[in-house]
Order: sequence, then structure tokens, then C-alpha cells
Amino acid sequence: MSTDNSVTPVDAGALDGFDHETDVLVVGYGCAGASAALEAAAAGAEVIVLEKFSGGGGSSALSGGEMYLGGGTDIQRACGFEDTAEDMAAFLLAALGPDADRAKVELYSRESTRHYQWLVDHGVPFKPSLWDSPTWVPPTDDGLMWMGENAWPFAELAKPAPRGHRVTSDGFGGKVLMQKLSEAVAATSVTVHTDSNATRLITEAGRVVGVVAKQYGRLHTYRARRGVVLTTGGFADNAEMVAQHAPQLVGLGVNSDGGDDGRGVVMAQAAGAAVRHMSAAQVGISLIPGMMVRGMIVDDKGRRFINEDVYPGLVGQAALFKHGLKVWVILDEQAYEEVPENERWGVQPHFVAETLDDLEQQIGMPPGALQTTITEYNRHAAEGSDPYFHKAPRWLRPLRSPFAAIDVQRGIAPPEYGAAGRGGAEVFTIGGLHTTVDGHVLDLDGAPIPGLFAAGRATSGLHSWGYISGTSLGDGTFFGRRAGATAAAPA
Amino acid sequence: MSTDNSVTPVDAGALDGFDHETDVLVVGYGCAGASAALEAAAAGAEVIVLEKFSGGGGSSALSGGEMYLGGGTDIQRACGFEDTAEDMAAFLLAALGPDADRAKVELYSRESTRHYQWLVDHGVPFKPSLWDSPTWVPPTDDGLMWMGENAWPFAELAKPAPRGHRVTSDGFGGKVLMQKLSEAVAATSVTVHTDSNATRLITEAGRVVGVVAKQYGRLHTYRARRGVVLTTGGFADNAEMVAQHAPQLVGLGVNSDGGDDGRGVVMAQAAGAAVRHMSAAQVGISLIPGMMVRGMIVDDKGRRFINEDVYPGLVGQAALFKHGLKVWVILDEQAYEEVPENERWGVQPHFVAETLDDLEQQIGMPPGALQTTITEYNRHAAEGSDPYFHKAPRWLRPLRSPFAAIDVQRGIAPPEYGAAGRGGAEVFTIGGLHTTVDGHVLDLDGAPIPGLFAAGRATSGLHSWGYISGTSLGDGTFFGRRAGATAAAPA
Repeated sequence: MSTDNSVTPVDAGALDGFDHETDVLVVGYGCAGASAALEAAAAGAEVIVLEKFSGGGGSSALSGGEMYLGGGTDIQRACGFEDTAEDMAAFLLAALGPDADRAKVELYSRESTRHYQWLVDHGVPFKPSLWDSPTWVPPTDDGLMWMGENAWPFAELAKPAPRGHRVTSDGFGGKVLMQKLSEAVAATSVTVHTDSNATRLITEAGRVVGVVAKQYGRLHTYRARRGVVLTTGGFADNAEMVAQHAPQLVGLGVNSDGGDDGRGVVMAQAAGAAVRHMSAAQVGISLIPGMMVRGMIVDDKGRRFINEDVYPGLVGQAALFKHGLKVWVILDEQAYEEVPENERWGVQPHFVAETLDDLEQQIGMPPGALQTTITEYNRHAAEGSDPYFHKAPRWLRPLRSPFAAIDVQRGIAPPEYGAAGRGGAEVFTIGGLHTTVDGHVLDLDGAPIPGLFAAGRATSGLHSWGYISGTSLGDGTFFGRRAGATAAAPA
Repeated sequence: MSTDNSVTPVDAGALDGFDHETDVLVVGYGCAGASAALEAAAAGAEVIVLEKFSGGGGSSALSGGEMYLGGGTDIQRACGFEDTAEDMAAFLLAALGPDADRAKVELYSRESTRHYQWLVDHGVPFKPSLWDSPTWVPPTDDGLMWMGENAWPFAELAKPAPRGHRVTSDGFGGKVLMQKLSEAVAATSVTVHTDSNATRLITEAGRVVGVVAKQYGRLHTYRARRGVVLTTGGFADNAEMVAQHAPQLVGLGVNSDGGDDGRGVVMAQAAGAAVRHMSAAQVGISLIPGMMVRGMIVDDKGRRFINEDVYPGLVGQAALFKHGLKVWVILDEQAYEEVPENERWGVQPHFVAETLDDLEQQIGMPPGALQTTITEYNRHAAEGSDPYFHKAPRWLRPLRSPFAAIDVQRGIAPPEYGAAGRGGAEVFTIGGLHTTVDGHVLDLDGAPIPGLFAAGRATSGLHSWGYISGTSLGDGTFFGRRAGATAAAPA
């Protein structure tokens, strides 16, 4: 081994035996790791899960608990929606693109009702009721939500159906998902080693055969007879990797458990793995979608830039990548009042003004900027149309004095959201290892690296640049299961 | 060796000797390769240059021939401009960021006058006269041009001086640069092997010791006693790599000699090299800057998005990455007439109209879109101000009927530009291998890979996301020289 912190794989021949041995070694105990362990164990493999923190859950446990599922799940039907795998795939290809992973999207959509059933069979609860307004996470325990399927342009590309399946919970649902999956793991023969931070792969004649993990400052070696499954998450917590690959994210808040250090990605790269879309990210911005959709979101010139009824993550990506997060939610008193109390999260606007001239001055926009935008918006809204961005008529109404504004960069801090993101955003990376639908990690020749598998945010998953909530827990559990099953198959 | 097309390094122990042997092997004969070869030879090393095409020049020879140089060159002083390395570095850090390579930018700026002299000493001609209007390449043979240093916000961040040094030429200057560098190479002992396509590195105990190159279907092995310098260019011609790393570029025209296949990047990655900023790109869009600056550029909602007097490459990046290339140049008859004949390149607007209402309809913009923008623009322009984007007063004037528009996606095809880019743009990638200021290629641990060096667009160079013309020929020659000198130093 070279330096202690090196990611270069260790040659098995240089080791004096292994400290631990198993069939399948899963690295990382978030939703992808738990799913991989469950399927590997179900296939009859001996499984060890390594988790660097003191307990499992990972960033999955801190998430909203949305799973993007469809094609006609029980919950969709109970809420009165028909859906098909084809419409689901068409939506995802548009929303996650350009150039999303078609093979993964199509398989994921085709198998979605079966995957839903697997989750239910493992105790994951979903409530058959719809939250019918754009939101990050419903303020209620409603189990179904729109992810912008009914917004322009997506409604024209695929028959809309709500596919956000939110794990039933008091507040965010990720903790319930991980509780249920962890209980399921505990009911198997799977062994979990916590406080075990995998730092390097071990290879033997071109095959990955194990990992080196640090436990309380000591290095332990693990042999995996059949395969290593990396489910280590993204790299949003690794400032150097972010600067190298996604410099627009530098300095922003991170949506994670603090452990998304990208180590799994780099360990695999050091063994020859290819990566994809390393600059892509989910961008959660500090705004209340219910306020935005009834008003508008504008840039620092006072101009709208998107239809406010899309999934708010797409607003966040546009706000960061196209407008440097210099964005404000503009609304009037009526819009504020119309937002249900439980959806306001206690947020008060940063600015209020009787006139747009005053509001422009308070915010520091060019004189006439908001007046120009709102005059034009109101003119069309009075006719129920939005020829600029095609927001649905349901949300269109001329805005009238008094006005208010929320400065996204200044942040909002409702308790449920935790601390507001630094710079007004909380991000996580969605690029990563290039994998097959079966979880094989591919090398730069496009060939599987023997013995190496991955799933979850350590991979580029379904996505190219776009992101819809529910596709991380969704593809993490779905492709985690597949990676675990593939790894467990005797070599 | 595995498959014929594999990029996996070949172990020297598996070879039956080498077909060729030298001290320094330079792969790719564009400006970086020529510069590396010259310095390696000057240091007393035996040098072979491998070029996959039948002659040298590469994409450098097809370029405009701009070199970003400053800090007080003879040409700058002859044109009456003072400049400092500090102002040059401050501009570059802002224009090439966020998070440009500070160490490279500062060294490059500090050494710039010396590098200018080296170019002159090698016969590269520059004419001491200024072209004083935004342009891709001056339509004259003027040797100095602004690269947006005098435009907002850059003029506020660093004392402006024009630093675009354009190689004197009839038309594009890249061919003259490469002719002079090639003549210099021919006057040395350097050997050039054309039609020699390097496909894999050869390694020995963790050190890069040579390459395998294909010549007319046969594989030849080259041993490099001191080092291999990869100057193979970017990957804009490799559709698969573009889709993996920079999906926004998919399907666009490419500014290259057709050989920017990224092979050097991937060969090095397969030997453990790290990469940076793989989704970044220069975006040349099909417009005449002299028309744009006297009018405006707008998105598909008729809104301006940048001050039109910046370097047009920054307009191109904003047009592609922020507006999907759905952008139009809007001008009036007076603006068109004011563009000097030699700067029009024969371009005629795609649309003309007496009223903005008519122009909106012809283009397919929302009704009122252009009227709103131009009313607001004219109101401020009449007072000589542009509070939205801070275009310099020199270019501000209310626009009056009759109006005209150029559809950037439809393209323009002035003879000097060659065929217009597919989709209205010609791009090249600016991300690549992670290197030190001395040309060492770094691995994923941040350690130099013994025997491996790189320069030019195969590396991420000075840049993060931003791009200014002249920084490719500039950093290619500058860091090419350094890589060649480092490689030539006895191991």
C-alpha cells in the first residue's frame, strides 16, 4: 500500500490474508446498500455491509422519502389515475435529459409496479391520497404527489399521472424507508459492520476481490468471494471533487448526512471505472413552491425564467445553472393568503411594498424591471394564458398591490427543512460511476470490471442533467436490488 | 493486449521489444505538441512526434490564430496600452471561472511577455495595430484585439487592456502559427511520424514508458526513455464521450480538424489519470458580433441575457448552456448599415419587418415579447444607460423601425467561417487531464504519474467553465513548452 490516504487498489498478493471474508460485500448502508444486501441474501449469499458511520441510513434517511414509481401502482389507482410504463418512461427521458440513460429508464419504468410491491412487501408504507399542488414534500402525510408530470412541456410529451410516492411519515419519509429496510435486513443473515470506512479496493489479476476499511484508525481487510457492491453515495461533501467536476456547486449547502465524500467513486475509478455526468446535480432552493406557483420566480433583472408549476427541483437547476441563484419569488397579498397555512412553513417574505417601483428599489433591480414583467404577465394572465412559459391556467391571475418578495439566496428556514442551505440552496451530485442495468461497473473500454458493482448516487443512475425527486431513492433501491442479485450470482 | 480497440495500458513485459525508441515521445502535432517537441529538443533530448493524420497542424492550424498574451508585450505597448501580469491574471480568473486554475493562470500571466518573445523568436508574426470592436477574429490583419476586457463586469475587476494577439495572416491565423512552429521543428533533430495513431500507453512497474501506435493497420511500439507527452486535443469529435460528459453539446457542430477524439484523455485515464471540468466547452455561435453589439441578442421570449460587448464566446456559452441556443440577434437598419462592410461577412438577416409585432410573429415569439424588451431598452438607451446588462454607452442607441433578426440556430455561412455549425454552433471541449504547471499528469491521489505529461486541450488547462479565445493556443504553446522541458529532464 502507498500512502494511508491513497485510493489506488491494493494487490491481494501483497496481503497477509484477510481479516474478514464473505460472498458479497456491500459498501454503504443507505437505501441502495440495504436493497443490495436484501437481494444478495435472498439469493443465498453471505453478505457483509460496511457503513462508515455509527449507524445505517445514510443520506437516504434524511431525505423526503419520495420514490418515483408508476405504471399503475395500487396507490395511483386508488387515487383514480391510470398510468403506463410507456408514459412514465417518456416523462423521465424528458425530465432527466438531455440524453438520459434510456436502457435504465425503460427497465425501471417497466418494472415499477413490481418494485412498488417489493417495497410494500418489505413494510414500506404509502397512503392512497393525493397532494395536488407543486411542493418539495407534502406538508401532510399524503402518499401521492405530482412531480411536474402535468406541467408544460411534460404534459404534452406523455399522458400525465402523479408518480411521486411519498413514504408515509410524520414529516420527511426517508427515515421511515430506512427503518423498514433496516428491519428487513436485520431479519436476514446479513452482517452490518458500522464505523467501517472503506478506503481502497483490493484486486487480484484484474478482478475486484475485496476492500480495505478503516475501523477506529486500524485497517481491516475484507474478502468478497463473489463481488463488491459500492453504494457509497455521491460526492457533494467532497469540496475538491465538487470543484473539479461541478464548480457551480462550490460553496453551496449540501443535502446529505455529511458523508457523501465520493470515496466509492474514486476508489472505483482508481480500479479503471468510467464515470458519467459528473457536473450534474439536484438543486433544492429555499422557497415555498405554493407561494411561487401562485406568484412567479424571477431573476435579478426581474424576468421569469420557467413555468412555476414544474417540479421545484427543475426550478432550482435553472436558478443555479442559468441565473447563479440570483432569483426572487414575487407574489401579492392574495397569493400569500391563498397558500394553505400548513404549506407556508412559517415563511414570511423578505420584502413587502405597495408599488413595484418600491419593490425594485428594495431588491436592487433595474428600474422598471418588475413593472415590465408584471405588466406583461398580468395582460396575458387576465386572459388565462401564459404564452411565455405555459404555466397552467389554474395558477394564472393578474398580480395586484400590495406585493412581496422572497430572496432565495437569503434563505428561509422552516423547521421541517432543517437549516437553510448556504447561499440559498442545498445540492447533491447525481453523476457517478457508469454502470449497466445489472449493476456492473464499466471500465473505460465499456467492459464490466470483474467483481465490481454499484448503485445509488455513487452511479449516474437514470439521469443525465435533469433531476426529479424520487429518482434517487427510486433508482437506489431498484438498481441496488439488481446489483445485489448480480453480485450474489456465483462467479 | 486485450481487444484491438482497448485503451488499457500494455505492460512492457508482455512486449517483444520496441519498434522505435527515443527520449521524449510527443503524441499529437498541434501547437502544444510542436511546442513540447521544440523545448524537449532544446533541452538536448531525442524527440519523436506522433501524428495520426498525414500532416501536422491539428485543430490549431484551423483556428483563428489568437493567442491570449499580455502584461506589457511589444504589441500592446506599440498600440499605446499599459498592462500588468496582475491585471491579466485577475481578468482570466474571472473570465475562465468559476474556480479557474489559479496556479496556472498566475504563472501564465507572469511569464506572458517572455512567452510572447519566444513565439516571435520562432518566427510567429504579430502586427502592432488594434481592431477596436467585438469580433471572433478581426476581418483585417490587425494584430491586437479586445477579448471583453473592457466590458462589464471585467472592466471593474481589472484594469482593461486588449490581450488578444492575433497571428498575422490572410484570414485565420492558426495556419501561420503552425507553419512557423513546424518550420522551427524541422530545423531541429525532432523526428515526426505521421499517419501514426497512438491508441494505448505502455507501462512498466507503474511508469509510462511508451505508446502503441497504429500505422496503416499495423501496430508499432514506441519506447520513451524519459517521458510521453500527450498533446492529443479535446474530445469534441467523440460523440460517446460528449454524451457521457457534456450532453448539452450533443449534435452540435464541432470546431476541430475532425481528430479531436479524446483518445489521449482516455488512454491516460486508463493509466490512472484524473480529469477535470469535462462538461466545459467553448461555444462559437453563428452571428456577427459587430451586428449584435449594435443591436441586441435575445432568447426565445425576446429577452436580452448578456451585455453584447463581451467576448462573443461568453455570449455563445450563455446562449447554449442557459438558453438552449434558441437565440436571435435583433438589429435595426441603422445598426446594420453601421457595421463596416468587411465585418459583415456577407451576412443578410433572416427576417425583416416594419413592426416588432410583425417580427415577433415571423420568429414565433410570444406576442409583446420584443416590444416589451425594446421599449425598455430604448427608454434606457436614450439616456445612455443599460441598467440591465451594462453594455458600454458607445454601443447604446434606441432601435427604430425597420427591424431585422438573425436566427442563430439557422446559421450563417460566411466563407471565412467555413460551413456554419450544425444547430448554429461550433463547439470544442475544454475539460481534460488534471496536470501540474510543469505538465505532469496527476492520478486520482493527486500524485504525478511517472513518465506521463500532457498539455493543450487534452488537459483542463487554465480553465474551469469560462472560455476566452486565445487561451487554447496560448496555454497549448505555453504549457506545451513546459511539459516538453519537464519530460526531457533525465529521469
